Amino acid sequence: MSLKNDLLLRAARGEKTERTPIWLMRQAGRILPEYRAVRERLSGFKELVETPELAAEVTIQPVDLLGVDAAIIFSDILVVPDAMGLPYELIEKVGPRFEKTIRSASDMDGIRIADPDDISYVYDAIKITKKALNDRVPLIGFSGAPWTLFAYMVEGGGSKTFSEPKRMLFQNPELAHRLLDMITESTIAYLKRQVEAGTDLIQIFDSWAGILAPDYYREFSLKYIKRICTAIDTVPVTVFAKGAWFALEDMADLDCQTIGLDWNMDATKVRSILPNKTLQGNLDPCALYGSFADIKKETRTMLDAFGDHPHIANLGHGVYPDTDPEKVKCFIESVKELSA
Amino acid sequence: MSLKNDLLLRAARGEKTERTPIWLMRQAGRILPEYRAVRERLSGFKELVETPELAAEVTIQPVDLLGVDAAIIFSDILVVPDAMGLPYELIEKVGPRFEKTIRSASDMDGIRIADPDDISYVYDAIKITKKALNDRVPLIGFSGAPWTLFAYMVEGGGSKTFSEPKRMLFQNPELAHRLLDMITESTIAYLKRQVEAGTDLIQIFDSWAGILAPDYYREFSLKYIKRICTAIDTVPVTVFAKGAWFALEDMADLDCQTIGLDWNMDATKVRSILPNKTLQGNLDPCALYGSFADIKKETRTMLDAFGDHPHIANLGHGVYPDTDPEKVKCFIESVKELSA
Repeated sequence: MSLKNDLLLRAARGEKTERTPIWLMRQAGRILPEYRAVRERLSGFKELVETPELAAEVTIQPVDLLGVDAAIIFSDILVVPDAMGLPYELIEKVGPRFEKTIRSASDMDGIRIADPDDISYVYDAIKITKKALNDRVPLIGFSGAPWTLFAYMVEGGGSKTFSEPKRMLFQNPELAHRLLDMITESTIAYLKRQVEAGTDLIQIFDSWAGILAPDYYREFSLKYIKRICTAIDTVPVTVFAKGAWFALEDMADLDCQTIGLDWNMDATKVRSILPNKTLQGNLDPCALYGSFADIKKETRTMLDAFGDHPHIANLGHGVYPDTDPEKVKCFIESVKELSA
Repeated sequence: MSLKNDLLLRAARGEKTERTPIWLMRQAGRILPEYRAVRERLSGFKELVETPELAAEVTIQPVDLLGVDAAIIFSDILVVPDAMGLPYELIEKVGPRFEKTIRSASDMDGIRIADPDDISYVYDAIKITKKALNDRVPLIGFSGAPWTLFAYMVEGGGSKTFSEPKRMLFQNPELAHRLLDMITESTIAYLKRQVEAGTDLIQIFDSWAGILAPDYYREFSLKYIKRICTAIDTVPVTVFAKGAWFALEDMADLDCQTIGLDWNMDATKVRSILPNKTLQGNLDPCALYGSFADIKKETRTMLDAFGDHPHIANLGHGVYPDTDPEKVKCFIESVKELSA
């Protein structure tokens, strides 16, 4: 393997790069008319996730159309709960909905550690993508963090408070740990297969990190992320725990290369908390609603905040679906120009 | 005025108290069967807010039933937008919905600085409550922070991202400031009337503080909170900005007595950031799903974190509606017992 553009991987390893690499969370998705054209032909989001040729096609679109320095495999974090025996559907404009939830020990009947073979459509998509990318840029694989997957499996869908999964932490912590352990084992096996199939870097998304108090986050989330980081030892790992500013100091101990920051986090401060980690992020996705001139200005402010710390540019969250792709391009080009 | 129990006010002024005072955000509400009995007789939530005798009745319920050290007037932060010319309704299990929203300069037609007389039902409720409380405990008045009210007025309801109000900050900051200024003037006049009617302390709720990047929070929220704090100079003021851990250092400069903490914030750290402020909070509302023994244990951990810093005990957010009132009482009694 010799990638033509390996900026992302070198930055992840903490090496100096000729400019800052950039990719965007949710870069493959509704912002692109070309994505929507593929999506419209299908019955739903899950059909796209489960059809390797099409998942590969939309994975590559932003590399061609936006000029990002990495592709991220088009998939969904909830394929793991699905393979554990908890099927879900994605309802347009609402979000995921599980027909069954885990609220008690008896709800664990039929829940198993996922057989990674049951998610082979993802590895197939990775292989097709790698071949089509032809080493132009690295391919990122990903999973949800165990706590975030647990939150969905217990709540049964999205929520403002996720009070059901949190209730379990307070009422039945043993059951919570049992389920978190099974999710972690499932995730490790799944991610190892993603790496075997060809991904160059793994990102772990802890989308609901921010709803736990610090002690509970350490106990019910970070401990499991740590196990995953240690298990994935052949490619760099990025941990993005949205809202977990309170856990940044603890993240210094994770066996991972990069920590993702959301837009609330001030990079000038985080640099001193995490001197040994590459940092990723963190423009407010809403900054892309601004004018081209303002986006360039905001990009400069962001780059200045990271300074000469190893940095992978990104938004502080997934790009919002109603963002003008030209504004996304402006952000990408500004990073390339201003960091050179 | 000589309150029989003035623990809250003395703690707010930073004085040593014989024990830690306690009240709960949303203590008057769905957790109490006595509240639900009043509510069921009415057409909706707004009827309760706008009927002073009933608002007073539910305001006093937690004082009698739970033994809290303060009452907080039963009302809604959205009465201010309503009085500014933007009516809303509260839809059961969904939240507030505005029929009109502010997205452009022309949407400002008909929007005015509120005439505080239009919200006189709140002052009437305060007067009735004060009389009925008979100086047993202080009465807290409140408003939303301008940024939070702005977020609802522009978005038109709740949202995961509040991308519409944020869009305005990036696309039309002048219009945003114009509206924020009008909300601030409306709020100051409204709060002054609450104080005249008899409230002993004012709390400002910035529920959506956590969705702004630090620079934007300072520019579009904190600046306006500062004006309110300066204007309300006859009673203590508490600022509760949920998720705004990044702004704690800036809050040291606010002309207010108390800063509310959510459950993500580690009081042992915040004490050194805000040595001159009383701190309020911050048990995770979900901790009240635990056993009585666990609630007592969690309460002790919380009290230890605040140590001998001036402290008003509370949850880190409003009490969740499905919480057992006996568990709420356990929290209240644990604070009283363990802090004595």
